[in-house]
Amino acid sequence: MTINIDQANQKAIDAFMEARPVLVGVAKVMDVIPGMHENLFLHAGPPVTWERMSGPVRGAMIGAIFLEGKAKSVEEAEAILKSGQIEFAPCHHYDSTGPMAGVMSPSMMVYIVENTTTGYKAFSGLNEGRGKVLRMGAYSEEVINRMKWLNEVLGPAVDRALKEMGGLDIRTLLAKALHMGDDGHNRLDAASLLYTNFLAPYIIKTATDLTQASEVVKFLGENALSILNPVMAGCKTMTQAGHNIEGSTIVTVMARNGTDWGIRVSGLGDRWFTAPSPKVKSLYFPGFGEDDACPDIGDSVITETAGIGGFAMATAPALVTFIGGTPRDAINTTLDMYEITFGEHKHFNIPFLDFRGTPTGVDIRKVVETNMSPRVNTGVAHKDPGVGQVGAGVVSAPMKCFEDALVAFAEKFEI
Amino acid sequence: MTINIDQANQKAIDAFMEARPVLVGVAKVMDVIPGMHENLFLHAGPPVTWERMSGPVRGAMIGAIFLEGKAKSVEEAEAILKSGQIEFAPCHHYDSTGPMAGVMSPSMMVYIVENTTTGYKAFSGLNEGRGKVLRMGAYSEEVINRMKWLNEVLGPAVDRALKEMGGLDIRTLLAKALHMGDDGHNRLDAASLLYTNFLAPYIIKTATDLTQASEVVKFLGENALSILNPVMAGCKTMTQAGHNIEGSTIVTVMARNGTDWGIRVSGLGDRWFTAPSPKVKSLYFPGFGEDDACPDIGDSVITETAGIGGFAMATAPALVTFIGGTPRDAINTTLDMYEITFGEHKHFNIPFLDFRGTPTGVDIRKVVETNMSPRVNTGVAHKDPGVGQVGAGVVSAPMKCFEDALVAFAEKFEI
Repeated sequence: MTINIDQANQKAIDAFMEARPVLVGVAKVMDVIPGMHENLFLHAGPPVTWERMSGPVRGAMIGAIFLEGKAKSVEEAEAILKSGQIEFAPCHHYDSTGPMAGVMSPSMMVYIVENTTTGYKAFSGLNEGRGKVLRMGAYSEEVINRMKWLNEVLGPAVDRALKEMGGLDIRTLLAKALHMGDDGHNRLDAASLLYTNFLAPYIIKTATDLTQASEVVKFLGENALSILNPVMAGCKTMTQAGHNIEGSTIVTVMARNGTDWGIRVSGLGDRWFTAPSPKVKSLYFPGFGEDDACPDIGDSVITETAGIGGFAMATAPALVTFIGGTPRDAINTTLDMYEITFGEHKHFNIPFLDFRGTPTGVDIRKVVETNMSPRVNTGVAHKDPGVGQVGAGVVSAPMKCFEDALVAFAEKFEI
Repeated sequence: MTINIDQANQKAIDAFMEARPVLVGVAKVMDVIPGMHENLFLHAGPPVTWERMSGPVRGAMIGAIFLEGKAKSVEEAEAILKSGQIEFAPCHHYDSTGPMAGVMSPSMMVYIVENTTTGYKAFSGLNEGRGKVLRMGAYSEEVINRMKWLNEVLGPAVDRALKEMGGLDIRTLLAKALHMGDDGHNRLDAASLLYTNFLAPYIIKTATDLTQASEVVKFLGENALSILNPVMAGCKTMTQAGHNIEGSTIVTVMARNGTDWGIRVSGLGDRWFTAPSPKVKSLYFPGFGEDDACPDIGDSVITETAGIGGFAMATAPALVTFIGGTPRDAINTTLDMYEITFGEHKHFNIPFLDFRGTPTGVDIRKVVETNMSPRVNTGVAHKDPGVGQVGAGVVSAPMKCFEDALVAFAEKFEI
């Protein structure tokens, strides 16, 4: 079989870059995600059983059981989750991406992002803010009440606003945010402000209750990660557009569940290549340390997969106050990532590097050749269920995923 | 007379940095600016007569006559302005700063910014956005109607919101915006987003009319210069705090009116040192060129006086797409300004320069010694009344202002 890998890779990253993700609305998981059913709960990363599930994913599953009204105590919830009544599956198997634990259950509201170039739709939940939150494995009453408020108040308000404004172009918004000190993953201060600014007039215009409208705008404006989930779904539509290109060595999915790190490669279909998830090099919140940390977790690394996040760190020097390191480290991270990517982004660029396009399209060949794996900006969850976020930092993907994928690629194409 | 210049200068810039400007409300010029009267119209820069007044200031004066309902035609308006009925004075003589033409007439609404450290209050008008606007010398019906809407709808809505939220800390907002790619003068994209985000929930909460609230939030959010005027008034309160320090060579006012460039120096009281205003090195809007440009104009250089704007360009590399040059030029501008300033800011810093404080407090001794004058990011107005903005760029202050001031300083202190 003759393949032209470079040509295939160019096709893959062209598809990444031609994708035009537009945030079109908010709806219930059950109503919009194809294949969803009452007893299916999604989670971040590659597939994992209850037995091997990390603390934060277990915690978020318990919270989801509460939210769905299936149990009232942790013991009851755990009994249900262990019993086999609930089916677990990766978000990525259902066109979705979940930050951190990434748990999505049937009644949760999710953002709908459509790649208007292809019509493909991806989904992601409503962001709860930082700290003690479901996606970090917390499930207290406060957490569940906030989830309910997101479902009942914020979700519908944002949906009405998005419909009224005719959708929001995520790629343009991200391109702008990268000129405003955001990396597009761990620092989304500017993107979240832009998001709130775009929405606010339409939230007001379509308000059914003024107090609620004021609260929704305040919540969105004060949460520097408001836009994280639409950005993740947007990045999913980009990388998915470049998936399943025969002969391509470009990575189209990277994801972690706190137990395993996994990748998928464009030319290798839906097979996961996994390795144990490493710990994050992190700055910890007061009172927490490395012993408290769950290994690397979440689907948010879809941003790096699409060419932003850690790959765009050179444009986000202020981020080092949150994740550690120096502005020089931030620049070097981006420069390193050019060594393992196939191209440079047409729409995302870095003013400080003379507007050079961000490193885009991780090439498993280059990762193995240079022995340098993708670097990811990320949050860190407590290892136990029920706690929440403990820090933020930088992590390198395990080499094994890329090595195994390259072997599989060589086998498949008889190289 | 024995003076310790360095000690005096330290005192001056400490006062700059200890100032805590808080935006407290919006009110009518006549009701809040001490000494204002019905026939007093303020303008940017040092004093100037009608005969020597630049096109944009004349244009804005004509617009102000329309707004005050004193005339209906340009001829009538000019006749009034020439007649001596209207007294002209610099904004800076009335605790105010006006961008570009900087015209403030009795019925206009203005922002009130209080330095909570000293109680001093400064004022600046409501920003109209870019393009064909009064501050650029335009006075068409569209321009006057927008001014009326600002006066009657936006101003009161923002005032109610500010009262409800208990004021807005301008220094904290600016410090944040400098980490988001703003220079604090010509690029205020992030600061204006932050501003709108802070206000929006309170605009909604105190709304008297939902459609108007939606329009106000949309106008503020879409205008990347929404916050320019509060920032200018905030910077005025900072530099004013360091004014009139015996023996200080620190510049506390820089301002231009399109005819003259002027400065005031802390140790030299309220005397202006002026020179002809130079042309700006500019990127022009399509259809305009250097021949169309009015010489440098506006009080917005109060931002550079306080240690941001052109002085902080190293943190705003994306700005070069608007004003020309390269990211390297932006960094070099900031590095140059360290050569002519007395200190580094405690609250404003630049992530890319390892969080180094911005160059703060122009020292007339250093300007003359290095033969390097302050560099300013600025907009460019058409030279004729009635047109509007034609571009944006960078300008160096005329050396003569600083040389004359240094001579006067030497004379006063018998050095």
